[in-house]
Amino acid sequence: MTRTEIQIRFSDVDILNHVNNVRLQEYYDLGKSHYFSEVLHLPIKWNERGFIAASTSTSYISEVQYTNALVVTTKVSKIGTKSITIYQEIIDSATNTLKGFSTSILVAFDIVNHVSIEIPKNWRDDIEKYENIEI
Amino acid sequence: MTRTEIQIRFSDVDILNHVNNVRLQEYYDLGKSHYFSEVLHLPIKWNERGFIAASTSTSYISEVQYTNALVVTTKVSKIGTKSITIYQEIIDSATNTLKGFSTSILVAFDIVNHVSIEIPKNWRDDIEKYENIEI
Amino acid sequence: MTRTEIQIRFSDVDILNHVNNVRLQEYYDLGKSHYFSEVLHLPIKWNERGFIAASTSTSYISEVQYTNALVVTTKVSKIGTKSITIYQEIIDSATNTLKGFSTSILVAFDIVNHVSIEIPKNWRDDIEKYENIEI
Amino acid sequence: MTRTEIQIRFSDVDILNHVNNVRLQEYYDLGKSHYFSEVLHLPIKWNERGFIAASTSTSYISEVQYTNALVVTTKVSKIGTKSITIYQEIIDSATNTLKGFSTSILVAFDIVNHVSIEIPKNWRDDIEKYENIEI
Repeated sequence: MTRTEIQIRFSDVDILNHVNNVRLQEYYDLGKSHYFSEVLHLPIKWNERGFIAASTSTSYISEVQYTNALVVTTKVSKIGTKSITIYQEIIDSATNTLKGFSTSILVAFDIVNHVSIEIPKNWRDDIEKYENIEI
Repeated sequence: MTRTEIQIRFSDVDILNHVNNVRLQEYYDLGKSHYFSEVLHLPIKWNERGFIAASTSTSYISEVQYTNALVVTTKVSKIGTKSITIYQEIIDSATNTLKGFSTSILVAFDIVNHVSIEIPKNWRDDIEKYENIEI
Repeated sequence: MTRTEIQIRFSDVDILNHVNNVRLQEYYDLGKSHYFSEVLHLPIKWNERGFIAASTSTSYISEVQYTNALVVTTKVSKIGTKSITIYQEIIDSATNTLKGFSTSILVAFDIVNHVSIEIPKNWRDDIEKYENIEI
Repeated sequence: MTRTEIQIRFSDVDILNHVNNVRLQEYYDLGKSHYFSEVLHLPIKWNERGFIAASTSTSYISEVQYTNALVVTTKVSKIGTKSITIYQEIIDSATNTLKGFSTSILVAFDIVNHVSIEIPKNWRDDIEKYENIEI
C-alpha cells in the first residue's frame, strides 16, 4: 500500500465550500500514479503501453475541506490476466478519518495498437511482490 | 430522460489523446445539472438545499475523442425517501455508439445545516411526473 | 471575429460563488479552438504543427456567474512572421456587458521537431482574408 | 519570497505531452495561496474578505513536463492602497531553469458586500515586513 499526500488547489473547491467530487477523482489518480512509479520502479511510458481504466466506483463518505491534510492510500487488491483491481481511500491524516473510498478496474493496454494486452510479467511480479498477492 | 450536448474543451484531452476520465465526470455533471434545471423547473439554490453525491459507478466503454459529437443522457431510475438513483450514458451522437455509462446515488441535503433531508415533495412530484416512476 | 457560446460547468464555480479565474482561461481556449476550426477550415493536427501560446494577458472586469449566458469573441488583431496576436472578450450575452478580456501571443510551432516556424502561407491567407488585415 | 513545490497531476498534461497552459495558472494559484498563509499567518476567510485578481500576465518560456520537479516562487513586488502586485516564476528545481513567469494585480475585496476595500493594515504590515518594501 502506498500513501500519497495530496496538495489541494484553491480551484478544487466548489460553490458548496468543499472539494468538488470530480476533483476527488484527480486525488485518486495521484495515488495511482504514485503507486505505479513506486511499485513498477519507473514511470509507465504512456506512448507505449499502460493501464487504462475500465470502471471506477467511488463512495463519498464525508466532505473534504480546503484545509484538510489528505492522504490517498492505494493498493492492488486483485490481479488477473489482463486487469488489476485497485482499492483506494482518501483519509484526513490529522484525524485519521475516512473521507471516501474508490475501487477501479484497470486493463493493461497497448497504446500504439489500441488493444488490451496481458499484464507484462515484470509488472505482475513487481505488484505481487509488493502486495504479497498469491495467484 | 434529458439529452445534453457536451462542449469538449482542449484541456479535457490528456496525453493519451483522448478525453481524460476525470473530465468525463464533468460531462456527467453537465447532464445532472441540465436534468435538475429541466425537470425541477429552476436551478437548485445551492446555498439552501440540493442533492449531494453519495456514490458513483462509472464504466468506460470506448475512448472519447476531442472531435466527437457527444450527448449525455440522464434519467432518474429510482427514487427513495432521501435519495435518488441517476443513470447516465455518454453517446457519440454522430454514430449513436455508447462511450460509457454511470450510475450515481444522490442524497437530498440541507446545505445550511449539513444534514440529509427527505426529498422535498415538489421535487419528488416533478421527478415522478417526468419519469413516470411509480412509488 | 468568431463568437463562441460557452457551456459553464458546475465545477467551474469556486468557493467565491463565481467562475474561477483559471477556468476562465478554458473559456478563452474554447474561443481560440473555435476560431481555428472556423477560419483555418479544419482542426489543426496537433501532432504535426500548431500554435503555442507565448504569453497571455487577462483582465477580469466583472464576476462570471454560473447562470450567465456567455459568449467569447475572438479575433486576430496582428499577424507577424512567426506569431499572431489574438484579442478576446468574455461577454454576458443577455445584457451585452463585458466580463473580461484577454490578449494572447501565439507562435506557430512544429510539434514534431519542437521548433517555432513561419506561419504557413495558407494559414496566413485564411486569417488575413477572414480579418481583412493588411500586411 | 515563498517557494512552493508543485504536485503535478496526470490530467494536467494535455495532448501536446506537456502541462496545459490553463493548468499552469493553477500552479501560480498554489503559490499565491501558500504566500498568503505563510505571510499573513492564517488562511484568508474567503467568506469575509480576500484578494481578487484584477489582471494577470503570463509568459510561457519553456514546456513543463509531467516528470519535472517544479517550484513556484512568489513575492509581492508592489503594494498600493487597495491592490498589490505579485510576481511569480515557475522553475524546474532540478536544473534551476525558468519555465515561465507571471505578474498579477490583486485587489483587496469585501466579499460580503462585493466592493473593493483598502488593504487591511495588519495585512499590509505583514507583507511589508516580509518583503521589506518601503511605501
